[in-house]
Amino acid sequence: MNISDCKSVPGLNDIGYEMYRLITELYPICRSITGNGVRETLQVLKKHISIEVHNVPSGTQVFDWTVPREWNIRDAYVKNSRGERVIDFRKSNLHVLNYSVPINRRMSLAELRPHLFTLPNYPDWVPYRTSYYNENWGFCLSHNQFMELTDDEYEICIDSSLEPGFLTYGEYFLPGESGDEVLFSCHVCHPSLANDDLSGIALALFLAKHLSNVKRKYSYRFLFIPGTIGSITWLSLNERETSRIKHGLVLASLGAGDKFTYKKSRRGNAEIDQAVLNVLRHSASSYDILDFSPYGYDERQFCSPGFDLPVGCFMRTPNGSFPQYHTSADNLDFVQPSLLAESFAVSLAIVSLLDNNVIYANQNPKCEPQLGKRGLYRAMGGVEGGINELALLWILNLSDGTHSLLDIAERSGYAFDTIKRAADTLLDHRLLKPMLQ
Amino acid sequence: MNISDCKSVPGLNDIGYEMYRLITELYPICRSITGNGVRETLQVLKKHISIEVHNVPSGTQVFDWTVPREWNIRDAYVKNSRGERVIDFRKSNLHVLNYSVPINRRMSLAELRPHLFTLPNYPDWVPYRTSYYNENWGFCLSHNQFMELTDDEYEICIDSSLEPGFLTYGEYFLPGESGDEVLFSCHVCHPSLANDDLSGIALALFLAKHLSNVKRKYSYRFLFIPGTIGSITWLSLNERETSRIKHGLVLASLGAGDKFTYKKSRRGNAEIDQAVLNVLRHSASSYDILDFSPYGYDERQFCSPGFDLPVGCFMRTPNGSFPQYHTSADNLDFVQPSLLAESFAVSLAIVSLLDNNVIYANQNPKCEPQLGKRGLYRAMGGVEGGINELALLWILNLSDGTHSLLDIAERSGYAFDTIKRAADTLLDHRLLKPMLQ
Amino acid sequence: MNISDCKSVPGLNDIGYEMYRLITELYPICRSITGNGVRETLQVLKKHISIEVHNVPSGTQVFDWTVPREWNIRDAYVKNSRGERVIDFRKSNLHVLNYSVPINRRMSLAELRPHLFTLPNYPDWVPYRTSYYNENWGFCLSHNQFMELTDDEYEICIDSSLEPGFLTYGEYFLPGESGDEVLFSCHVCHPSLANDDLSGIALALFLAKHLSNVKRKYSYRFLFIPGTIGSITWLSLNERETSRIKHGLVLASLGAGDKFTYKKSRRGNAEIDQAVLNVLRHSASSYDILDFSPYGYDERQFCSPGFDLPVGCFMRTPNGSFPQYHTSADNLDFVQPSLLAESFAVSLAIVSLLDNNVIYANQNPKCEPQLGKRGLYRAMGGVEGGINELALLWILNLSDGTHSLLDIAERSGYAFDTIKRAADTLLDHRLLKPMLQ
Repeated sequence: MNISDCKSVPGLNDIGYEMYRLITELYPICRSITGNGVRETLQVLKKHISIEVHNVPSGTQVFDWTVPREWNIRDAYVKNSRGERVIDFRKSNLHVLNYSVPINRRMSLAELRPHLFTLPNYPDWVPYRTSYYNENWGFCLSHNQFMELTDDEYEICIDSSLEPGFLTYGEYFLPGESGDEVLFSCHVCHPSLANDDLSGIALALFLAKHLSNVKRKYSYRFLFIPGTIGSITWLSLNERETSRIKHGLVLASLGAGDKFTYKKSRRGNAEIDQAVLNVLRHSASSYDILDFSPYGYDERQFCSPGFDLPVGCFMRTPNGSFPQYHTSADNLDFVQPSLLAESFAVSLAIVSLLDNNVIYANQNPKCEPQLGKRGLYRAMGGVEGGINELALLWILNLSDGTHSLLDIAERSGYAFDTIKRAADTLLDHRLLKPMLQ
Repeated sequence: MNISDCKSVPGLNDIGYEMYRLITELYPICRSITGNGVRETLQVLKKHISIEVHNVPSGTQVFDWTVPREWNIRDAYVKNSRGERVIDFRKSNLHVLNYSVPINRRMSLAELRPHLFTLPNYPDWVPYRTSYYNENWGFCLSHNQFMELTDDEYEICIDSSLEPGFLTYGEYFLPGESGDEVLFSCHVCHPSLANDDLSGIALALFLAKHLSNVKRKYSYRFLFIPGTIGSITWLSLNERETSRIKHGLVLASLGAGDKFTYKKSRRGNAEIDQAVLNVLRHSASSYDILDFSPYGYDERQFCSPGFDLPVGCFMRTPNGSFPQYHTSADNLDFVQPSLLAESFAVSLAIVSLLDNNVIYANQNPKCEPQLGKRGLYRAMGGVEGGINELALLWILNLSDGTHSLLDIAERSGYAFDTIKRAADTLLDHRLLKPMLQ
Repeated sequence: MNISDCKSVPGLNDIGYEMYRLITELYPICRSITGNGVRETLQVLKKHISIEVHNVPSGTQVFDWTVPREWNIRDAYVKNSRGERVIDFRKSNLHVLNYSVPINRRMSLAELRPHLFTLPNYPDWVPYRTSYYNENWGFCLSHNQFMELTDDEYEICIDSSLEPGFLTYGEYFLPGESGDEVLFSCHVCHPSLANDDLSGIALALFLAKHLSNVKRKYSYRFLFIPGTIGSITWLSLNERETSRIKHGLVLASLGAGDKFTYKKSRRGNAEIDQAVLNVLRHSASSYDILDFSPYGYDERQFCSPGFDLPVGCFMRTPNGSFPQYHTSADNLDFVQPSLLAESFAVSLAIVSLLDNNVIYANQNPKCEPQLGKRGLYRAMGGVEGGINELALLWILNLSDGTHSLLDIAERSGYAFDTIKRAADTLLDHRLLKPMLQ
């Protein structure tokens, strides 16, 4: 199977449901930037592809940062004086401020209150909050739930541990014909949040699974890492290898929302940026294009000035832009199999474009070659899946050794696939030859 | 007479009528990409200017193409069983599929039907069709005429020949002060079609005639060639000389239509592209600018990647964009003397711009020279045909050795003529000196 | 006091009134391109700052020009036959055609009429007219006044002198840490016109006065020169020093009009052009940006091709664009202290931007530095005058040795001040280091 056949992947619809099932399986796990939740998550993924699991000891210096102590949690609750759990970690792992230090004592509501987090504007929803680098403890709850708390004495228990251990991440590498790499990265540090970023994890996994079965020009690297500290750790441990990364995408929040959002790499006009734009322009979906900014997901680290990798961020709903972001409303009802399937299809189209974006040299550069004697003149035009004669002429005219097929698609206004099919025909007739690159 | 006086050519109106008369004279001739029609056409043109006629033998290899056998036709008809010519070549040469092989036999309407071409959407018009490289025969007729054909036995006769001979084209060269050339090309392969491209032939001829009487900086080359195979043949035989071509225009379909259309060269920002835009912007007419595409007239060959010559295409109605295109409605009623005259005037303005587009060096580059002591300060402003003081200041400010007069016209917003007149005044006062180029 | 504190200059409001008072003091003086009026004006300015006064002898060759004879005037009038002064220089120095040669004789209205200048469209206003390089004499008066003149015999007296003397200009130089200079220029040749350009003189003076009391990176040079011949003379005498001018502004007509107008330098994208745009974009005022044209104030000379200095023109009302321009209506009622104060504040912001526009190198270019451990993460955001966390991230991301703080401000969309404050914080934490330039 050839990579360019990716858009006619059999059972695309089924893939959406498989992605959704994976999200359902991962949803209950309490993840954080370190700890058993990440390891458990990677174990689930390993049922699909042979991800390599890396454990980096706490205290490891990674550039300006230090790998933190490992956090694990078994239980947490707030009990009222009648012994009822009024806040209960067992109901949702979002109820605990992520990275809370252990605590077990009684206190008044007044004493407890500074440790409670709610969303007054969305009184039914539980917020997701973290305190990785300031030791703290706390509970998140719906504002309605908070309003019901009475002036009582409460038993507070967080049965967690914050101890030397490891930062864990997963890595999956698919070698291709070339050592040049395409990087995909998603974050595995969020607890029960479905869109952000179990959808990204699911997309990365199914992309990897699909690509493992096709002929690849590029090598492909997939990172399943905790946000920020994970990408910093990976970049620190793999600094020398980063020069192989020719294109990359951070995948995030791809299971909900009407339209796609692409945030450009810091370079702004890298091939990945042009490739995503071309695919989005020729897909039926509406989309937004954002310029790079140093705020968002792990593209912040990949695009830091010391690396400046051509890595963009492919999303539907950008971080912070949807009300469900970082709340209990980002749940299994929020993500949809059909949207996951569409995200998968568009991602594959991007990959296919990159993998097939060759620069050819026209072997008859002086005047047009005679297409008629080769049966290419007004022979196949207009036919569904056929060869577009104008696309042939554009490729012949621009294949002067400086224009890639993507450049030709952009200038002619045709979809990359149309250009690619026409180029294959010209190649068959020996009218093109790939440039040595 | 100086080339820059071209827009005040005496009797511009008369030239429109002379062009129209030439079109009338050439209209009845049955032209094709080879054969006597082209030779007869060139003989008519030779009454005006001493065009050199080239005959290239059939079978000559020209890049990827081969010069085809020569086609000639004497008569053709379809007779019904009563012996009446229901389709008659003598009424219009469009009635025969151009390059039809000889045939002479009887057949039923059913057998004849696949060889008949009509335009159901324009039932009064006869289409123009060719089959140069696939041996075939056929007749073109109006759809109304076709509907009247009854189930009869018909006598089919095409008295044509397709034999080794020559591809014929005309070339006219006007040497100038410089060996650098401006190329004009038009196609001489269409039978009775007035706008496409007898108008182009007429414009090329009268431009050549006019330029032969004026002082020229550039040399000028005019090609009267069959479309596609003609330009390929010329480029193949003159490959080395093409480096002298500094600017060029394909002239086509310039006798009908409200507005001008300019299709840019492949380079997109060549001097010819800027020059045509500047002239059109400052002419009263409305106009369209098209980006280069590898489909159209012979600019396809001149702009193939192995040549990439700075050749645009100057038209009124672009190919395929007007309903009369390639039909019997492109006749002597369709083209108009006044439009031909306007096309001539604008073409001359373009030529004048190119020929006068000098780079000057300001001889007093430090601060403004004192215009007042030379009588140039508020002396002539506002006068019709006078010198624009602001134009003087723009030229002095930008004549730093990198800006041509066209660059200055573009940046200042003035018409090239205004800038040219002001530059001539500064030159008279020795405030400018031409750069050695 | 640091230059970057300029916008919180104590008593900005008072400065507007002080500028207005200076304009009031200078308003009655009859200035011209030479003569005692300029010297008297510079004497008034010397009460504030120690301007150096230069006197260049008449006849000195300055590039293509010659320093003219010095013009002085004591009195001028037109008396009717009853001996009444119907036009009186003592009422307004605008009544005399500037640079009028001496005359003293009687004549009819018919003989006088060609020497009278009025504004029929503004019948109450007296025009301002000059005849520096064509010997002439004349009177300017309101059109209403003109209509009242009867057919009488008039006594004409202009008690002026046009004799070898000097062209006088003032120069004030403030050395900074660097020999690189910022140039400010205003014209001192206009008689009783308040906006054009006593406002420019007042702004230049108070800028100079303010900058003399602060720490400066750049050196600053202020020119108080007659228009055109003054800048030509200065450039001719200081040709070699011009290479030190890294940025410059001509200041003109800054005391009236709702919005600012900035006319770009000939280069169009010089740092001064970007700096002024950035400041205007982030000020509350509306503004217009004009491309360079070789017509206007002394930027014509500074931007002549032999110099091409990065000098723009900072105005409110551009020359010729307001009806009061060069008339008696450009008086002390036309300019306003509050507008002068605003012009001063914006000018200081421009100066501050230039003086602080450093290129830094991020000292932790690989991944983001950990802002949290330095107390910079969500610590001060949102606070008035506090540090914007996103601004920190933008600076860290773009400080790769090629982007100045202005570049970062432009790309991030933040005001320069926001970026500058954030950069200072990062500098304090040794996260940045200035590039050697």
